[in-house]
Amino acid sequence: MSVLGVGSVALDTIETPFGRAEEVLGGSASYFSYAASLFTAVRLVGVVGEDFPAEHVEAFRRRGIDVTGLIRQPGKTFRWRGRYQGAMNVAETLEVHLNVFGEFRPVVPPAYRDTEFVFLANASPQAQLEVRRQMTSARLVVADTMNFWIANDRQGVLALLGEVDGLVVNDQEVRQLTGVENLVSAAREILRLGPRLVVVKKGEHGSMLVTAAGLFFLPAYPTTDVKDPTGAGDSFAGGMMGHLARTASVTEAALRKALAYGTVVASLTVEDFSLRRLAESRLEEVEQRVAELEQMTRL
Amino acid sequence: MSVLGVGSVALDTIETPFGRAEEVLGGSASYFSYAASLFTAVRLVGVVGEDFPAEHVEAFRRRGIDVTGLIRQPGKTFRWRGRYQGAMNVAETLEVHLNVFGEFRPVVPPAYRDTEFVFLANASPQAQLEVRRQMTSARLVVADTMNFWIANDRQGVLALLGEVDGLVVNDQEVRQLTGVENLVSAAREILRLGPRLVVVKKGEHGSMLVTAAGLFFLPAYPTTDVKDPTGAGDSFAGGMMGHLARTASVTEAALRKALAYGTVVASLTVEDFSLRRLAESRLEEVEQRVAELEQMTRL
Repeated sequence: MSVLGVGSVALDTIETPFGRAEEVLGGSASYFSYAASLFTAVRLVGVVGEDFPAEHVEAFRRRGIDVTGLIRQPGKTFRWRGRYQGAMNVAETLEVHLNVFGEFRPVVPPAYRDTEFVFLANASPQAQLEVRRQMTSARLVVADTMNFWIANDRQGVLALLGEVDGLVVNDQEVRQLTGVENLVSAAREILRLGPRLVVVKKGEHGSMLVTAAGLFFLPAYPTTDVKDPTGAGDSFAGGMMGHLARTASVTEAALRKALAYGTVVASLTVEDFSLRRLAESRLEEVEQRVAELEQMTRL
Repeated sequence: MSVLGVGSVALDTIETPFGRAEEVLGGSASYFSYAASLFTAVRLVGVVGEDFPAEHVEAFRRRGIDVTGLIRQPGKTFRWRGRYQGAMNVAETLEVHLNVFGEFRPVVPPAYRDTEFVFLANASPQAQLEVRRQMTSARLVVADTMNFWIANDRQGVLALLGEVDGLVVNDQEVRQLTGVENLVSAAREILRLGPRLVVVKKGEHGSMLVTAAGLFFLPAYPTTDVKDPTGAGDSFAGGMMGHLARTASVTEAALRKALAYGTVVASLTVEDFSLRRLAESRLEEVEQRVAELEQMTRL
């Protein structure tokens, strides 16, 4: 079963203590699609400028990513320049140029409309909601958001939450959104706002799934070789949604496994800059790490 | 099978956002013993002053804690006054008077010498090592330490590590001890210094067991009712060692379960001031929470 990812496609310039990468493929939809395409066919909605290298589009296609929804518009591609220092917990944005992404009103191609598994990467809640409403056959719509929207369009975020099935956020965001310090209590607050599942990402401390059925905790996969944290969250979402779409299931058991796949795919992403590590990853490697994670959490 | 706990017995005065408790029972050996006595017979080595209330000694006895090794000396009992604010992650020490604990040279009573499971709570590495060498029948000796000793008696801590089987420390301490930021790498460094097991406590983020057999991750039990974090670490050690002693086992499987018992007992401790919550806890409640934890981590 296919999965749809809607978000940004960018060219990133990144510095970390382990090196530097210039004008490399980035953006939430790119990370999401690369990750999800390890599991199933992916449909991508995004926008790039005239300067976007054709080789990246080709690479999407080679991974089974449908780029019918990837529009090329006059102007330049979204650029982000960022830096990580020390323990690399926080991305410091040095420059951001939204370019063609700034005016983007995502339109889902008719051929995508039957997609049942949908991920709305971080964007304006208004844009996310417009996409959501186009997906009338969706079984599972999961959204991401970020501190900027929670602070500047709280009503928009709340409206979005009323119409999606799931929210994937980090620990800071769920606290900011609810004003509740305790993460379990905060995530339970979100369940009252609409979604039936909340995934809280806690970086090196792993992730947590909160549903009506209860709580599930999973550690991060313990890679000791982190070179560039960019895209970890969107890769997580890609692994999670990719697994759910391939099993066509949204049971509690499937969701738990999906968190493990998200965790493992994110652990691969951060082991190199941009999408280099994911580009060379194979599903066997993912399955191997999921098996290890299972072993490392067995009580 | 009995477990031995060596450490401080104190009278604490504690302020948290949830209230205040004055001159209440505290100290590492008290928390450890209360916790371990949920599982098995406990032998306590410690020192108190002439002012230590007899009712606390009686309460130890009623819980099956052997107080042969609890010495009463001329002078006053160890006093600690501390405060927690905000998210209560850090204890702020307002006053500390070591009193009789300052000169304490722990001597293990002859009747305790055959104890096979031994916990050396935080103390000077020299004092810990002296106790360790008295325990010639021990199957498992686990030590705690703290930032003060790592900074001020690093050689002592290293000597101790060379003669114990296990170390229980928090995330900051294992980083400080090894100079390694990544917790898994840091814990593996400790394995090279002597111990065959390292438990890293990460507060609300749970704990990690590192042995030659591999890694094990466990979340904290998600209590949302934290009133006073004092004693969480020593209660954890008490639950862990208590479970190991009652099963008389130190296999990887037993160690994993022991972390779960430690986690759950710590979650009870923090739900009230001092030892109030543990005093009224029963083993059935502990088993219930361990079962929940198992459910919340099942992949």
